[in-house]
Amino acid sequence: MEFDLKTTFVFSGEITSIKENIETFVEEHRKALKEKEASLDILDLKKNILSLKLTSTGSLRPHNMLLHLKNLMVKEFGKKYHLGIREIKIDYYKIVFEIEKKPLKKVVIPFADLKIEDRLVTMSLLKVDDEFLRRNYIDRMIKLVEEKVKNQYYEGKGEYWELIWESRKKESVWRKDPTEEMLKKSWLKQGPTKGKWFYYPQAAAIIRAMEEIAIKEVLEPLNFQEIIESHIVPFDIWLKTGHMRGMPGEFYYVTEPKTRNVEKWEKFVDLVKITKNIPLGELEKNLEVPRSGICYAQCPMIYWSLQGKTISEDSLPILIYEKTAISARYESGGRHGIERVDEFHRIEPVYIGTKKQLLSLREKLIERYKHVFDELLDLEWRMAWVTPWYMQQSGRFEEQNSSRSREKGTIDFEAYMPYRGERDKSEWLEFQNLSIIGEKYVKAFNIKTQKEQLWSGCSGIGLERWAVAFLAQKGLNPEKWPSGFKKYLNKVPEGIRFL
Amino acid sequence: MEFDLKTTFVFSGEITSIKENIETFVEEHRKALKEKEASLDILDLKKNILSLKLTSTGSLRPHNMLLHLKNLMVKEFGKKYHLGIREIKIDYYKIVFEIEKKPLKKVVIPFADLKIEDRLVTMSLLKVDDEFLRRNYIDRMIKLVEEKVKNQYYEGKGEYWELIWESRKKESVWRKDPTEEMLKKSWLKQGPTKGKWFYYPQAAAIIRAMEEIAIKEVLEPLNFQEIIESHIVPFDIWLKTGHMRGMPGEFYYVTEPKTRNVEKWEKFVDLVKITKNIPLGELEKNLEVPRSGICYAQCPMIYWSLQGKTISEDSLPILIYEKTAISARYESGGRHGIERVDEFHRIEPVYIGTKKQLLSLREKLIERYKHVFDELLDLEWRMAWVTPWYMQQSGRFEEQNSSRSREKGTIDFEAYMPYRGERDKSEWLEFQNLSIIGEKYVKAFNIKTQKEQLWSGCSGIGLERWAVAFLAQKGLNPEKWPSGFKKYLNKVPEGIRFL
Repeated sequence: MEFDLKTTFVFSGEITSIKENIETFVEEHRKALKEKEASLDILDLKKNILSLKLTSTGSLRPHNMLLHLKNLMVKEFGKKYHLGIREIKIDYYKIVFEIEKKPLKKVVIPFADLKIEDRLVTMSLLKVDDEFLRRNYIDRMIKLVEEKVKNQYYEGKGEYWELIWESRKKESVWRKDPTEEMLKKSWLKQGPTKGKWFYYPQAAAIIRAMEEIAIKEVLEPLNFQEIIESHIVPFDIWLKTGHMRGMPGEFYYVTEPKTRNVEKWEKFVDLVKITKNIPLGELEKNLEVPRSGICYAQCPMIYWSLQGKTISEDSLPILIYEKTAISARYESGGRHGIERVDEFHRIEPVYIGTKKQLLSLREKLIERYKHVFDELLDLEWRMAWVTPWYMQQSGRFEEQNSSRSREKGTIDFEAYMPYRGERDKSEWLEFQNLSIIGEKYVKAFNIKTQKEQLWSGCSGIGLERWAVAFLAQKGLNPEKWPSGFKKYLNKVPEGIRFL
Repeated sequence: MEFDLKTTFVFSGEITSIKENIETFVEEHRKALKEKEASLDILDLKKNILSLKLTSTGSLRPHNMLLHLKNLMVKEFGKKYHLGIREIKIDYYKIVFEIEKKPLKKVVIPFADLKIEDRLVTMSLLKVDDEFLRRNYIDRMIKLVEEKVKNQYYEGKGEYWELIWESRKKESVWRKDPTEEMLKKSWLKQGPTKGKWFYYPQAAAIIRAMEEIAIKEVLEPLNFQEIIESHIVPFDIWLKTGHMRGMPGEFYYVTEPKTRNVEKWEKFVDLVKITKNIPLGELEKNLEVPRSGICYAQCPMIYWSLQGKTISEDSLPILIYEKTAISARYESGGRHGIERVDEFHRIEPVYIGTKKQLLSLREKLIERYKHVFDELLDLEWRMAWVTPWYMQQSGRFEEQNSSRSREKGTIDFEAYMPYRGERDKSEWLEFQNLSIIGEKYVKAFNIKTQKEQLWSGCSGIGLERWAVAFLAQKGLNPEKWPSGFKKYLNKVPEGIRFL
């Protein structure tokens, strides 16, 4: 890497009278820096201003040296000559560095101009202040260029997918789209906003049966305990988990009123009463900037609830689940039926323990899931090892999917959807997953135990997905449902008769 | 009422040549109007412009006459002289009317200047266009003045409250604030945003037991069926129910991204990665104006789900409940413990049927609730007849709380909270309500049956409120809990041991 920085120190008073002292100071440091493949020169010295040129071709980063240099100068001249340093200005900063791969298309980042020739990046900073240096922006900018180019090579590449198990083929009772058929029977209604559904008693009973099965057949036998979290997630939690940089275009954001004061809302209310419409301009005046969003997955807040805690070893592994926080994801296109929606109901088990505990738990969970999908729901389904979403979507690609290790990572559970076509030609539905995440989240939230390093993981049980996988294969007629499921629901409620 | 309107009709061409015809036309209508205590005069007629003065002291409202007058003139002169009317301008509009009571303080409304002397209102319109007339704003403005003055007399007045039943006095096992004590025991954690809670397994088990009791002991015995609704409510539903004008300062608003397109979010993501902060300005560029909010109560969307439907008589009464949509209410001040929060979990039964069916259902519901509160939870509690919130908060005061009739209205269920002080000096907690609403919502959503007029009602079962009422009287030690509750929960889970 090559760094070329021109900076100006603005002193609190005249420095021309100590010109020689400053030159000596710079000369001394210049020598010391030379050994580290860096240089320091005076560009200008007049009135209360000292302009310096700092370059480096080694490991020293000039932007990290500035504050240090400032402190040294204050120490050297401050007391003796009653001088302080008011400001450090960056007049010019060019950084040249090599990246691993040649970009496939133009790369842009904030705060800098980029020129990239082959694998050589020249980054010229546009505007830099004190805070900029202190808060380590520059190192992150270098990393970001590297990452953006790397991502260009991943774009458009399919997800990693490796079959690890499949059930036997099973006869489906029909080949219809269950959502369409439930709509015809008034078991379901679309809306009131996009990608949301209203479940009349018949469909609600099926969703509720799936929930009961997950709890009674998977979670309770393994001693998972329920917790209840808020479904409104502040940005600082998502900053820690990486969601904020990973999928900001998929959140439903939450905005609070500036006040509940009736007088402040009087004009809004008057306009609603007179016009029978919502005065959006007046509304915006009364609202805050969003600082939170609706639950995307339940696990981030579970980690938050344990933030900074040291867990007693005899409490390990922690086995908890959350089932109340409704998830919202802005899907834009691609919505379909109750399986691809903007709002859904998920039970999310989270487990925290030693690596050994979690790898053993994974086997037990798979065993319980197999029992449910094979024996109770009698599904045609399979398991595949896939690139974990949370690493992919937060812009991190780690080479851990190499077949060498199947410790950290995600297993997708997929069901055959007869209405989509032949089993080997159509897309199966991911109706469940199971992840071992490793240290990432426990470190981000500083969750510890006495001795060992903790690992964590989670598993998303999407109730709509379970229901649609089941109904796509088994139909809507309870008489044709497998006996295992009938133990939980053997007929659908009567519902409401419309004329 | 007195109306005084000056208006200008802008014709598509010169009208001076047909001045006499127009004068004759006006003269004819002037005579007809006189009988109705109204007048019509020409103020000016030049080029393509006709200015008129319209007054009325009777039932005729000049703003309703303008479009009619326009049509008549087009009919009379349009074809014959090839004239159209391009525009109707309102140059001046003064309306004088009497209101029932003298204002107690200044009244302001949009679109008009108000002068009120004693009970006489002079309303001068500031800006009126065609749409303004067509959409009936003026009538609503008159109504709004009336309503605002009326409200001044209600402000600060306590809620109507009439004791209708009380349990016997019961011994409490302690006088502590259950939230404080649960915090000390790590059964609960505050946050992560204001007025929200995180329930560790111990507290979650209590909330869940309350849910189970409500379903098994109240709703299932009465044949209520579950439905599942979206927890994101579009403004048009709240416009129909009156919530939008009733409590806009209490909603948590929901804002969608403008797009999910990764390129549009690239700058935002880059800034998050570099600064480790949320660039709020950049975020706002990518978000829509809010057009929905988080569930406030579940019943509005239940009515929406039946909108425009004719219900088969043999399906009546419709008995349904919703328990998934989490409610959010912006409480600003006044938050306390788990009983006064910004986010809570409520089961909301809704019933729709004939008046007779609903009045009978109310008795059955009360009987089930009594069974739960008296026998299972062994609470000290009472019922009171109160002014229903939905009428009060949507700005409508109907004289139905007069003791003559206890058909439509709300019953509050209140529990003694020992930690707040003596039973006769402290505020009891409203932990439940039960309303018969009458025709209001079924009419707003046009829900019908074959013959009879439908009524509806709802009952809010707040799980946090049930829990806190119980714990405030019965404490946190399961050994001291009444046997009826112990059938549902006889010990709390172990939870997680923190060091």
